[in-house]
Amino acid sequence: MATKILLDCDTGVDDAMAIMYAALHPEIELLGVGTVWGNVEVPLATRNTLRVLGLVGGDTIPVAPGAAGPLAGGPASFAHHVHGDDGQGNIHDGVAVRSPAGISAAQQIVELARKHPGQLWLVPVGPLTNVAAALALDPELPRLVAGVSLMGGAAGCPGNVTPVAEANIHKDPDAAAAVFRAPWRIVMAGLDVTTTVLLTAAHRERLAAGGEAGRYLARILQHYGEYYRDEVFGEWACCMHDTLAVAAAAGTLAVRLAPVVHVEVDTSDGPARGQTIADLRGAHRGYPEQPGAHTTVLLEVDPRLAEEAVELIAAHRGSAR
Amino acid sequence: MATKILLDCDTGVDDAMAIMYAALHPEIELLGVGTVWGNVEVPLATRNTLRVLGLVGGDTIPVAPGAAGPLAGGPASFAHHVHGDDGQGNIHDGVAVRSPAGISAAQQIVELARKHPGQLWLVPVGPLTNVAAALALDPELPRLVAGVSLMGGAAGCPGNVTPVAEANIHKDPDAAAAVFRAPWRIVMAGLDVTTTVLLTAAHRERLAAGGEAGRYLARILQHYGEYYRDEVFGEWACCMHDTLAVAAAAGTLAVRLAPVVHVEVDTSDGPARGQTIADLRGAHRGYPEQPGAHTTVLLEVDPRLAEEAVELIAAHRGSAR
Repeated sequence: MATKILLDCDTGVDDAMAIMYAALHPEIELLGVGTVWGNVEVPLATRNTLRVLGLVGGDTIPVAPGAAGPLAGGPASFAHHVHGDDGQGNIHDGVAVRSPAGISAAQQIVELARKHPGQLWLVPVGPLTNVAAALALDPELPRLVAGVSLMGGAAGCPGNVTPVAEANIHKDPDAAAAVFRAPWRIVMAGLDVTTTVLLTAAHRERLAAGGEAGRYLARILQHYGEYYRDEVFGEWACCMHDTLAVAAAAGTLAVRLAPVVHVEVDTSDGPARGQTIADLRGAHRGYPEQPGAHTTVLLEVDPRLAEEAVELIAAHRGSAR
Repeated sequence: MATKILLDCDTGVDDAMAIMYAALHPEIELLGVGTVWGNVEVPLATRNTLRVLGLVGGDTIPVAPGAAGPLAGGPASFAHHVHGDDGQGNIHDGVAVRSPAGISAAQQIVELARKHPGQLWLVPVGPLTNVAAALALDPELPRLVAGVSLMGGAAGCPGNVTPVAEANIHKDPDAAAAVFRAPWRIVMAGLDVTTTVLLTAAHRERLAAGGEAGRYLARILQHYGEYYRDEVFGEWACCMHDTLAVAAAAGTLAVRLAPVVHVEVDTSDGPARGQTIADLRGAHRGYPEQPGAHTTVLLEVDPRLAEEAVELIAAHRGSAR
């Protein structure tokens, strides 16, 4: 049976690929998408989400707009230098899109969770503002969902916006702290693994030779890979990031090392603000059980997810599933 | 020419080995030792230091007692569960020792630095309280010494007292922050490397078959290795810890990876208090230069230091150098 997934994203280049993967993978049933501030402003994230869904036969999947900034207020910052002015690699795609749903992303989380009790995986791949808002709306949420598989954090590797903090968590540490504290199963796909599954220039060529979705993804990846070339890797390559959280929820990611450990989000005003403090001290002894821990931290995964996702998307020819 | 070293230690089992190594190594001139609270109370650290120096012909090396607790006040905690009630593996050695020097450890740092301008390596292997006090005593200290080679912190690996903090830094984050901020060259031998250079049961047997110093070290190591067996490794083995900072200062440690990066100590009251936040984000590009950075963080070293140190100590037969 396909895994029921609700994506929550700040679309974003890597988010676009995650949406395509979730919409096209035969073992995934994508029930809805929420949008959130983060990589880009929320109206742009909503627009991009609707556009990408249109490329993969997802025209009936509801898209609910969410929070425009952090849970506790304060300024929102974005990552247009990574994702482009349009959040889609500066391709400035002019194709018209349909209207979003008439409910908020947080409301949609609660409604879908109540409609499919025990079956829904929440897959947030941006700041956790919408998920924290949904927890506030419905305190029973943790027992209504199958789990939360999120892209965010850095457990045993450097951060990407500070030496120790990853962007999604750093943008809204208060929301993240609420999500990590809630009594549900969490799978954390952080930089530990998302920087190990890379799209190369060859992958991009395969996408460019594919159908409409593949060609769109190849176009938006160009600028994104240039950012990584200049700032991170020294050659054209991109982290897949968000797709890993989708695949982890669906069981389509081969996981090699993933201990269940305590994770605390630093919400102080100190230099570690936004860090996901994961207790990996048991490494020398094979990570003995930590009573009360409920977060599975992915530390090593099979990088062949990149090939599989590229092939799935490149091979898609029509707009129907 | 031998490297002039001033050790500052909270003796402790691994400190005892570091003292022996520093006193016996032909490429090291050990000019003095300061003692500090940490593994044990400072009077005990002083007693143990004097005892250990007596075993390796160091009877004329001055030992200056230092701080009894953290720089900013507040309670001091110790690690008798690791080092034994006597700080020497519960051997309860009754041998009488000589008197310590009549100056404080901080004063001794300043005096020796001024006596050997530009030549002295400070090697603190406990909490950094004495070194911070010396900085306050003499603000010119940073330009008077060759550098600071310290055992402490965790840059890219878990901590040992919290998920992210190592004991020496966590015990006095304010002192550590002052030391890492001061404009001198720092070499950080943290858990990244000190947990990779291990003493095994075979090393202990070699020591037990050696001279008086080796036999003493073999005795005090027993309890220490049992702690590591039960709490860390699952088999009898010990981290050498403090000897690495001595060897790094003297150039007798083969260093394989050690970028010069910014390091900030978390002095907040958040969950990362006491963490050494090292900026390792340049890893994918071979650690490009970070302007203003002055801390060399050891990330990979040759573990054969263990054999070399064991052999040096086991082979010592007399009490004269």
